[in-house]
This record gives sequence, structure tokens and C-alpha cells, in this order.
Amino acid sequence: MSIVQSDAFADPVMGEPFLLTPGPLTTAYSVKQAMLRDWGSWDGDFRAMTRSMCEQLVALAGDTKGEFTCVPMQGSGSFCVEALLGSFVPRDGKVLVLANGAYGLRAAETMRYLGRAFTLIDKGDYMPPRSDEVAAALDADPAITHVIAIHCETSSGILNPIAEISEATYARGRKLLVDSMSAFGAIDLDVNTIRYEAMVSSANKCIEGVPGFGFVIARTSELEACKGNSHSLVLDVHAQWANMVKTGQWRYTPPTHVVAAFLEALRIHAAEGGVAGRGARYARNRDVMVGGMRELGFETLLKDRWLSPIIVTFFCPAHPNFVFTDFYELMKQKGFIIYPGKLTVVESFRVGCIGRMDEHIMHRVVDAAAQSLAEMGVDTAAPPAAAIAERARLAA
Amino acid sequence: MSIVQSDAFADPVMGEPFLLTPGPLTTAYSVKQAMLRDWGSWDGDFRAMTRSMCEQLVALAGDTKGEFTCVPMQGSGSFCVEALLGSFVPRDGKVLVLANGAYGLRAAETMRYLGRAFTLIDKGDYMPPRSDEVAAALDADPAITHVIAIHCETSSGILNPIAEISEATYARGRKLLVDSMSAFGAIDLDVNTIRYEAMVSSANKCIEGVPGFGFVIARTSELEACKGNSHSLVLDVHAQWANMVKTGQWRYTPPTHVVAAFLEALRIHAAEGGVAGRGARYARNRDVMVGGMRELGFETLLKDRWLSPIIVTFFCPAHPNFVFTDFYELMKQKGFIIYPGKLTVVESFRVGCIGRMDEHIMHRVVDAAAQSLAEMGVDTAAPPAAAIAERARLAA
Repeated sequence: MSIVQSDAFADPVMGEPFLLTPGPLTTAYSVKQAMLRDWGSWDGDFRAMTRSMCEQLVALAGDTKGEFTCVPMQGSGSFCVEALLGSFVPRDGKVLVLANGAYGLRAAETMRYLGRAFTLIDKGDYMPPRSDEVAAALDADPAITHVIAIHCETSSGILNPIAEISEATYARGRKLLVDSMSAFGAIDLDVNTIRYEAMVSSANKCIEGVPGFGFVIARTSELEACKGNSHSLVLDVHAQWANMVKTGQWRYTPPTHVVAAFLEALRIHAAEGGVAGRGARYARNRDVMVGGMRELGFETLLKDRWLSPIIVTFFCPAHPNFVFTDFYELMKQKGFIIYPGKLTVVESFRVGCIGRMDEHIMHRVVDAAAQSLAEMGVDTAAPPAAAIAERARLAA
Repeated sequence: MSIVQSDAFADPVMGEPFLLTPGPLTTAYSVKQAMLRDWGSWDGDFRAMTRSMCEQLVALAGDTKGEFTCVPMQGSGSFCVEALLGSFVPRDGKVLVLANGAYGLRAAETMRYLGRAFTLIDKGDYMPPRSDEVAAALDADPAITHVIAIHCETSSGILNPIAEISEATYARGRKLLVDSMSAFGAIDLDVNTIRYEAMVSSANKCIEGVPGFGFVIARTSELEACKGNSHSLVLDVHAQWANMVKTGQWRYTPPTHVVAAFLEALRIHAAEGGVAGRGARYARNRDVMVGGMRELGFETLLKDRWLSPIIVTFFCPAHPNFVFTDFYELMKQKGFIIYPGKLTVVESFRVGCIGRMDEHIMHRVVDAAAQSLAEMGVDTAAPPAAAIAERARLAA
């Protein structure tokens, strides 16, 4: 394609679609090539890889005082969230869960499984939890010890106001835990500017690795204090950390190939300019894609202020010929896999901005959407009145 | 090397050592090549891959009556064991844990974390749990509902007598769970000949995939009954299964590349003749390797009757020049990564027989051991008297 200017962002393999999803996502070919060998997890070479990975991740969080530690954890991001809650919240602790989508609600469901106390602020499909609400909830319930917030709620694509949530939390002497699954590596979560005790993210999001593990970055003093909290042997972050300190190894078999891929992903991330560079590319991706989609008549769920550079929710058009599953297949035939919506009130779909793609690819996404609409016989992508009304609810 | 007769078992990459370990292990190059593309986990293509994988695994367990179901689970093998225990043992159940090494003890530790009742038969480093001991324990405690047994206890390499344990368990109306992590795919665990409710194994053992997930194969009626048992959201086997039935997807992000690799590993496994073919190659690997090592003066911990074709424990020689870490490095320089021992009483090391290696490679392993001994100035590898005495304890 003539509009692709750089090999680095060209189609990776003939016929392989781009993944416009919140992860697994399209990764660089060299990331996948790093998986072309087998590593012994006990061996010194692999232990050095794990150490390097953890050091780089702590640096990405901005820790320059040696106060934070990285502990990787096998499994998907949700495994990490459960490990975080089970390990950092004492059995007699109580968590304020801030939810505005599936991932916030999943944190609450995790607490329910754990049998530990929690209070839920549920803002529905996408309304952001604000500092005054957090403050009021904390003032109302002295038993609350921790707050958990979702950095980017992938359900809608909203970027939640973590900084003000953090301020409200610490002003009342409580502790913040952050699920930064789909934001870390592209959006600042610098320990020098936003206070928190621990955060989690995973290999297959903004660092652009492949899926198979996640990681906790925690204040070391908090990590030391969480011995004995965990409800689960395998998800015990303290035990994983203690074993790593002692032996340099993961406690149980690590996904060695996925770790090797992640190291290459970290190298590319640094070469792109770290968090700032990665975030800038994703923002351009979003701006080009959203601009083009709006020209086609698609409307975003969120106003610009809340649009993350991670993933964007669009309303499904009201036109009777528009059927999402058809649109999905037509987009896939053109080389782009999009993502279904997760709103409960109106029909929607999502388009991701993350992964090994640049603005030139995003222009092609818009072209594919235009062509797919034409093939479906949808002359305009204007959203239904109900969607417009729903959007109007969002406080700016 | 002239003794390597088949490309399939040649050194995979220049300078890459063979992993003579119980997993991660040396895999076929085509298995790793299958990871050279990105898959959308929501997409129909990947859902078809998951379905095919599960069907093939159930077939490997010998189920011809449609009575068993496979549920994959993210994470390492220990994640699967915890998911198994947490999901299949009711909260008011009680487990008899049969231990003769680290993995049996880990099952007991998992039960402790879960806060559920268990009784432990601990046979020490390697003595096999026998049916009369199981029978006596079950007779003595009517509260016991389940027995968990380790198929191949990798700590020593012993192949435990699962068939007789199963008979004793069901003769007393209890249910058997099997940790067949390092045996399934190479040693029969056919549901038609050995009765059990559920077993677990992982991608990076005898099927020769790469690490990143494991799987439960369970009697469907038992799976249906385990709703609400789990202590953990992410490790809830019932919830994972229910979601797969409903959507064809893993509940949370799967390690897509690792799954793609596993499908290629399953293809090779079938081409090799399935469980029988794979087991026969491993047995030849063991016989050639053990024979050669014995000629050098090394002694195995176990008598032949108990030697698995998975991994073999050798006593460290008594010679003052023999230092395991030196031996490890010398072997690694020659292209072979071996494994430290896990015995608590005497010094030992382990050599694996599994992975993409054949008897020709095993001859080279023995040659490398001979050369390493020479370089260390160890003229004979005869084990220390204490080791001989320890070995004598093993009832034949």
C-alpha cells in the first residue's frame, strides 16, 4: 500500500489482519521472533532476563528513589488484579471499588469471591468517578482502608481521573490501588506525580508484548507488609516476590517465550521515546481514526475530554441495514479486526488505537469502514436518537 | 553432528542448549514458528482453535463416550492444580493428599491456603504411596471426600501407582483427582482403564508446547456440580467452562500465541503416534541416558521399576572435586541444561527425558557428562555411601 511509509508499521504477514482491540494486539514482528527459542526457567540466562524486565518496568513508573518493586505474575490481567486485591488488602481491610464499566465491576466481583469487605460506587457504563464522590464515600465509612480505581476503563474507553482520585484518597488517609491494565506504558502513572501503593498492568497492552503474564509495581514497604494476606497460593504476590529475591526465579513455571517477547517489546518502547513517545503515537492514531469516523457520521460515546488514546466506543448507526456482525466481517475481510461494544443501554462497537500501528494504518481503517458501510447499503452512519440522548448524559 | 540422523531432532538454533528439564523444554521449531502471528482472542478463528484444542485433549484422555470435558486455564501448572482443588472440592469437602515430593506437598500447601480440610500422607522424598495406605487412611476418616495423587512426581522422577490408588479410592466410595502435569501425553491416563473425576496437565510438558497455560480434563457431571465452590474468580474452572460453552471464548485474555504453538505441538504428537508413540520415544531416551550414565558410575535414586520416562534423579558423586554448579556450567557449555535435585537428604541432580530430543541426543548427553567429569578431575562418578544407603530404603 502506497500510504504505508514505514516498514515497521506495514502489515506483518500476508493476510494477517490488524487487531484494533485492547489486547491481544498487533505486535512487531521482532517481538514474535524473540519467541523462536526455548529458555530454561531455572537457568542464569533467563533469571537475568527477568531481572532486567523488572528493573525496566520500575523505571517506567518513574521510581528514582528505589522505593518500588516489580513482581510479575503468570496469567492474564485479571489474574494480576485478583493477586493485587488478595495480597495488598488485609483480610480485615475494606475496599472502595470505583466502577464505570466491566473492569471496575470485575474488581468488585473479585472482592466478593475473596469474601472480603467492599463498597461499590457504580457509575454505570462510563460516567467517571470523581474526587468529591470518593471523598464522600471515604468520609461516610471509616472502615474503608483501600480504594481501587481503573485507569483506562476499556469497556467504554474512558480515561478515568486517577490524579484527583489519588488526592481524595490520601487526603483521607487511605491507600490507592490502580488497575492500569490498558494504560500503563502509554499514559503517565508516575509515582512522583500520582501517589499510589501498587498498580497492575499486563504484557499485551501498551508495551505491545504478547499475552501470558502481567505485573504488579508496588511500594516495597507495602509489599513487605502483605505477607500472609493472600487467599491463594499461586496468586500470592508476596510469596512470588520473596522467592524472586531469594532465587532470581519465578516461583512457578514462567511463560518463558512471552517474557522473551516482552523484553523485545520493552526495547522498542524505549526506542520510541518511552511513555511519552508511545502515548503520542496512540493519540495520533486516535485523532486520525476518530476524525475520519466522525466524517463518516459515526458518533463517539464520549466527549473529547474523556476519550483515551487506547480504545474508542462508537454508537452503532440507526440505519436498518447496519448489523454489527456483518460490519465486523466486512472489516475483517479488509484486514481489520474491531471489537464489540460493552454498553448495556445502546448498541455500540469499539476500535482500538494501540498496538503496532500508526496513523497511516488508521486512515486505512477509516477507508475500510466507509467501504463496509457502502457494501451494507448504509448511506449515513448517523447514530440513533437514543444514542445521542445517552451521550448527552455525560457530564463534561 | 554425524550421530544426529534426523533434522527433526537436530539442535534447533545455533548455540541454543537442549533443555534436559521437566519443562519448559526443548520444542520443535515449527511449534515456535506458530507464534509468528497475532490472533484476536474474540475472533472466530481463535475460538475455533480453542475448540479444536479441547476436543483433541479429551480424545487423548481416551474419552469415547462424551463424558469428559476439557477446560484450559491460564498460568502455570500450579495455577491449574489450585484451580482443580478450589473448584472440584466442595468447601465442606476433605482431601487426602498423597505426597512423595515437592508437588504433593504443594497440593497440601494449596489446601492450607484455601482453608479447606485435608489429611496428608507424606512418604518423604520419593517413596511411593501404596493402595493399602490409601485404603487405611480412607477407612480411618469418613470425612474424606477426595484423594489427590501426583502421577509423575517430578521431584524424584518417580512414576506413582495411579491405577492401584484409583482402585483403593473408588472401592471406598471416594473421588480421585490426578495431577498428571508431567506425565499426560506420554503415559496412559485413559479414562476407560483408570477411574478419576478430573486431572490437570500443562502445555509445556509431554505434549511439547511452550509454557503459558494448563488444562483440566474432567467428568462433565462433576464439572457441572462444582459451581460456587471456587475461592477465586480467575481460577474458577466452572465459570471458565460456562463462559466457553456460552461464547466459545476464554473468560479472560488467553495466551493466544502459546495456544497456537500448542496446536502445532498436538499435530506433531498425533503424527508421532499419540501417547504410545511419545511414551516410547521418552522411554528410549531414558534407557539410553540412564544406561550411559550408569556406565560412567552415576547411580539413580530409584530402582528401574519406579523410573519414569520423564525425568531421572542421580546421586551426586562423593568425589571431592564434584561440585554441582561446576558440573551444571560444564554441561551447559556443551549444549545441555540439566536440572538441580530436590532431595532433602542427599545431594542429587536430575536429567529430563522429555522434549524434542531422541536417543541420539541422549548419547551426546552422556558423552558431555563423561567429558565434564574429566574436566573436573573426577575419575569416577560413584555415589557416596549415604546415597547408597538412601537408595536401599526404597521398597521394590
